[in-house]
Amino acid sequence: MNPPRTDARRHHDPEVRGFASDNYAGAHPEVMAALALANGGHQVAYGEDDYTENLQSVVRGHFGPTAEAFPVFNGTGANVVALQAVTDRWGAVICAESAHINVDEGGAPERMGGLKLLTVPTPDGKLTPELIDRQAYGWEDEHRAMPQVVSITQSTELGTLYTPDEIRAICEHAHAHGMKVHLDGSRIANAAASLDVPMRTFTNAVGVDILSLGGTKNGALFGEAVVVINQDAVSHMKHLRKLSMQLASKMRFVSVQLEALLAKDLWLRNARHANEMAQRLAEGVRAAHGVEILHPVQANGVFARLPHDVSERLQKRFRFYFWDESAGVVRWMCSFDTTEEDVDAFVAALKEEMAR
Amino acid sequence: MNPPRTDARRHHDPEVRGFASDNYAGAHPEVMAALALANGGHQVAYGEDDYTENLQSVVRGHFGPTAEAFPVFNGTGANVVALQAVTDRWGAVICAESAHINVDEGGAPERMGGLKLLTVPTPDGKLTPELIDRQAYGWEDEHRAMPQVVSITQSTELGTLYTPDEIRAICEHAHAHGMKVHLDGSRIANAAASLDVPMRTFTNAVGVDILSLGGTKNGALFGEAVVVINQDAVSHMKHLRKLSMQLASKMRFVSVQLEALLAKDLWLRNARHANEMAQRLAEGVRAAHGVEILHPVQANGVFARLPHDVSERLQKRFRFYFWDESAGVVRWMCSFDTTEEDVDAFVAALKEEMAR
Amino acid sequence: MNPPRTDARRHHDPEVRGFASDNYAGAHPEVMAALALANGGHQVAYGEDDYTENLQSVVRGHFGPTAEAFPVFNGTGANVVALQAVTDRWGAVICAESAHINVDEGGAPERMGGLKLLTVPTPDGKLTPELIDRQAYGWEDEHRAMPQVVSITQSTELGTLYTPDEIRAICEHAHAHGMKVHLDGSRIANAAASLDVPMRTFTNAVGVDILSLGGTKNGALFGEAVVVINQDAVSHMKHLRKLSMQLASKMRFVSVQLEALLAKDLWLRNARHANEMAQRLAEGVRAAHGVEILHPVQANGVFARLPHDVSERLQKRFRFYFWDESAGVVRWMCSFDTTEEDVDAFVAALKEEMAR
Amino acid sequence: MNPPRTDARRHHDPEVRGFASDNYAGAHPEVMAALALANGGHQVAYGEDDYTENLQSVVRGHFGPTAEAFPVFNGTGANVVALQAVTDRWGAVICAESAHINVDEGGAPERMGGLKLLTVPTPDGKLTPELIDRQAYGWEDEHRAMPQVVSITQSTELGTLYTPDEIRAICEHAHAHGMKVHLDGSRIANAAASLDVPMRTFTNAVGVDILSLGGTKNGALFGEAVVVINQDAVSHMKHLRKLSMQLASKMRFVSVQLEALLAKDLWLRNARHANEMAQRLAEGVRAAHGVEILHPVQANGVFARLPHDVSERLQKRFRFYFWDESAGVVRWMCSFDTTEEDVDAFVAALKEEMAR
Repeated sequence: MNPPRTDARRHHDPEVRGFASDNYAGAHPEVMAALALANGGHQVAYGEDDYTENLQSVVRGHFGPTAEAFPVFNGTGANVVALQAVTDRWGAVICAESAHINVDEGGAPERMGGLKLLTVPTPDGKLTPELIDRQAYGWEDEHRAMPQVVSITQSTELGTLYTPDEIRAICEHAHAHGMKVHLDGSRIANAAASLDVPMRTFTNAVGVDILSLGGTKNGALFGEAVVVINQDAVSHMKHLRKLSMQLASKMRFVSVQLEALLAKDLWLRNARHANEMAQRLAEGVRAAHGVEILHPVQANGVFARLPHDVSERLQKRFRFYFWDESAGVVRWMCSFDTTEEDVDAFVAALKEEMAR
Repeated sequence: MNPPRTDARRHHDPEVRGFASDNYAGAHPEVMAALALANGGHQVAYGEDDYTENLQSVVRGHFGPTAEAFPVFNGTGANVVALQAVTDRWGAVICAESAHINVDEGGAPERMGGLKLLTVPTPDGKLTPELIDRQAYGWEDEHRAMPQVVSITQSTELGTLYTPDEIRAICEHAHAHGMKVHLDGSRIANAAASLDVPMRTFTNAVGVDILSLGGTKNGALFGEAVVVINQDAVSHMKHLRKLSMQLASKMRFVSVQLEALLAKDLWLRNARHANEMAQRLAEGVRAAHGVEILHPVQANGVFARLPHDVSERLQKRFRFYFWDESAGVVRWMCSFDTTEEDVDAFVAALKEEMAR
Repeated sequence: MNPPRTDARRHHDPEVRGFASDNYAGAHPEVMAALALANGGHQVAYGEDDYTENLQSVVRGHFGPTAEAFPVFNGTGANVVALQAVTDRWGAVICAESAHINVDEGGAPERMGGLKLLTVPTPDGKLTPELIDRQAYGWEDEHRAMPQVVSITQSTELGTLYTPDEIRAICEHAHAHGMKVHLDGSRIANAAASLDVPMRTFTNAVGVDILSLGGTKNGALFGEAVVVINQDAVSHMKHLRKLSMQLASKMRFVSVQLEALLAKDLWLRNARHANEMAQRLAEGVRAAHGVEILHPVQANGVFARLPHDVSERLQKRFRFYFWDESAGVVRWMCSFDTTEEDVDAFVAALKEEMAR
Repeated sequence: MNPPRTDARRHHDPEVRGFASDNYAGAHPEVMAALALANGGHQVAYGEDDYTENLQSVVRGHFGPTAEAFPVFNGTGANVVALQAVTDRWGAVICAESAHINVDEGGAPERMGGLKLLTVPTPDGKLTPELIDRQAYGWEDEHRAMPQVVSITQSTELGTLYTPDEIRAICEHAHAHGMKVHLDGSRIANAAASLDVPMRTFTNAVGVDILSLGGTKNGALFGEAVVVINQDAVSHMKHLRKLSMQLASKMRFVSVQLEALLAKDLWLRNARHANEMAQRLAEGVRAAHGVEILHPVQANGVFARLPHDVSERLQKRFRFYFWDESAGVVRWMCSFDTTEEDVDAFVAALKEEMAR
């Protein structure tokens, strides 16, 4: 069969994969198939389509009967919309110093959301009630941006995990102080797969008020959603999404991707596979003398310290990033499409370079 | 052949189309095919991929050797990024009162971009040097937000067109006052098709500094680009795009859609067809007694005044919107996938309802 | 008696006055005396001082038992704090095109407050329910910044006045649509003096929710206050004032000025005098052939159209501004310190220049 | 002689002083006398007056021939205007975690200025080139808000000082990375007095680009100025000041206060006295067993750790604040009007309470 006509050309080698980022992967074929299903004919724009409506029941299946999904374009957008939703103009966000919102969003929370971030250094990217207390004070003090929400990331930017009980403790602590809890779930699927629990177990079941639900790193072309669990905590989400430039006109194409991932178990298959590849990678690396793995490998990322020259030689063979170049720390990410062969070849190469 | 597996289901009838919006259409099959081409393997995220690189030469082919494309998610995002790029913190934007940035972006330019809009009422959605002068003053006056850019829409929100000479006159006037010119090209393809000239003829050739290049209404699933023509007018576009929450991680999937549209003539075929359907619709409607067509039909939209009860009965048969309900004005939009049969059936229905 | 020592020198002629602005005047001697009273010793900073506490009862005497004053530095600050207080992040403000917030605040409402202004052209700077309706719609439409407050100016930027009934009608109309009403009272004293009613008659008595209470133009060195009347409409005013950079540390010096003006009748004496001088000026001018007075002279400003060369010659003798230079329109403002001799000399000069 | 008439009343005891804040003091009598000098007659508003013009030469006398002063209302305003002036929309500010802009401005830099703060923990409130380097990276990385300015406070929020050489090293380091240096000089006079050098010695002479010049804590009623030293680093300061709601209409009354302080030596007399009182206080306290003084006492503040119950009993006799209540740390501030008797009485009371 001839491929369908298009004036675009293939510019890349679809057989080449690396360990730089789960954003380097493309989309899962089942997601692509879903796009085709949703195409054709006219559907109401801006979220009044049948796919977005259907997504609501899919999301309620995961996050309980109060859950409501607001599809958006990307993770930064999801976070900034969600955090605006649970803060007043005078509000601030308590988060880990290593949080994506603090270090990787170009100041969008501050500039676009008008949000002050109150950061806390953490050992493994994880907040605790005690760590939160370093910033949780001064609600009556107009000189201080008011802490109104605690934002945690699950799984974290350092590849670590909160247990459901840890999140419950954070939620109870935050709520006792009148604060809400936001969960940045850019890699929420990896967390659920690793914990081997439904996503609800560490979100609505333990008190999370609002979350950013990741699709892109889980196998979508693009697309995330703000999921509101505590409806009393928010208002006018659609207006917030629109003014934050995150309203897709042909929203069916975001919603159907999330449906493809979440309706059955594609989200879990993808995440579980990526996690397994990270475990395989970590095991292989641990067998190599001289490489130190830095954090518990609990999701799809492996952080390691190795000699700088080894890293540089290895980067010529496989794509990956320094996480902290001066400290010799690198990050290796696995994706839904990482293969065992990819991992084994990488480990072999690492051993070779270590041996030189 | 079995369709590829997906857990998503079809929720809509792909044979139903209406005249509500060119955003109600799905994606052109050639765009879908391009997505499949770009899938598979790993590509650098955030715009360092081969598709985005290739897009640059495609865009230079249309907009000249200085042009550079910055793919973004949606039209509001494109406009807000572009306008921030050509304004200082104290800058303001002169635009038509009917401009999308003024009436349909939820205040994003003001709130997210910190931009003041200086609006001018216009007869057909079009600015002129004379109309611009109603707001072009006070550059030295700190009490006034400084006019730094004129933003025009081509084709306009009212389905009308600027001639290349009209845009040239605006650019010369703006530049003489030290202002830049931004073109909101959400429907730029329809304009080029209707004028029967290349897009460059009314952009870089006549002095436009920066533009928002529309993909979504032209047949993409989603995706637009800010195209910088005057490189001296901007700086750090990538930072601006990121902090404006418009940076796609898997950018190849935006870029390849734009490539599919722009590499050869799909953009033109789609736009020309939509325009022709609007002409067919307008001709059919003109033959119906009692319906007044309001603006020159120069792109893919038809604005008409008809009895309110007729509109309401007709809306039960075909989707379309009131533009100004109190004035009895409706808008009918044609798309790349509107068929002659769709138009003829609509015109027949209109005649029936007018005759009741 | 020797004057108190200071290293500052007098740089100006305290006998020279003009008609350029009520901001050109200095402070009333009774205000200066109040500053001296409040000086000495320590007082809690940031508004917890005895002067600010006392101001509350003074303000309640004028604006009713629910009124609460939040002293700020200047009029732009008062307006931006007040408007933020009665809008959500997605809110917009309906105002006259000629409103100070739209034309004279450098875009502060948009950039600092994140506010969209929905403007309406008006004949005399005054809104009406019918004019408000041109922008009062689309509350459910996320594409439109949501109209949440109507802002009126009393007396207006054009020297005109609303009657209490006119404001009541606006408040009833706004409230019926779920909108609040803000009154920019930069010259509220002039309005009350001209209407010969207490300020409450056209504020709390008719439904105004929040207002900007002017001190500077009324004889203070500096200092205004946001006065909240409808406490249910606002929250955390102190936080808003602080984050808007309008919190004075030695607030006693703002509050005691407002006390000096408002505790008895200095506010009224000053305003009445300025208004009377404007009437005297208008009468004198009306007697001069060829000068057209443009709006009803209802407060302390006179707008007139006269030959351009006359204006220019006259400006060499007395300071005043063109309001609309291309239309030959000038503005003459009277102040609390304008004398009858000032007015008579100006009128005589005008007649001389008209006769040349 | 009868006091001048005013309807305001005295509400406080002008003989009561405490150690809570240098903002609790009133204004110096010579500043009050200067206000009287500047009053009367008409002066152009918004900074075109003779006092503001004269202030320029006074400021140039202190900060060199390139210096230009932009009077503003308060310290937060000065900082937010100054920092906006030296950052692009994508810019960030490196500062100490304890900086006033980070902890005491209610999020104004983020929300009003759109600024990301990149904070560094410091031992004594002082940055160094090494500490700056913890945040000085990633200029090419669009995911990171770009470090464009280093903001230091002199004297610091902890009552410590930078030597001129320390500031020179910071400036050289910042400039080598293309960053500007802002100095928050809310207590710059105390620093100069303590270092016994002119203010220029640690500002323009060592490379500071822009500073916030404090008047309020130095004896003014209110009033600060942004002082631009490096004119190439900024643009359109007047527009920035206006849109930041920091433009005083009757600016002569800000400028003449700064003139009264800066024209001769009132700034220095006031600061020197406050510093001496802090030294006297520290010496007295050091003689009390059980009280630990925490930082070098280099300006007008003393930080101490003492038993919690002692602090509480002492607070009933003299006003002062806990700095870190959980750690038992208090702050005692001296002012231009603190007397030796005040200090001695306080030390005696402290000793009494320690002895109970």
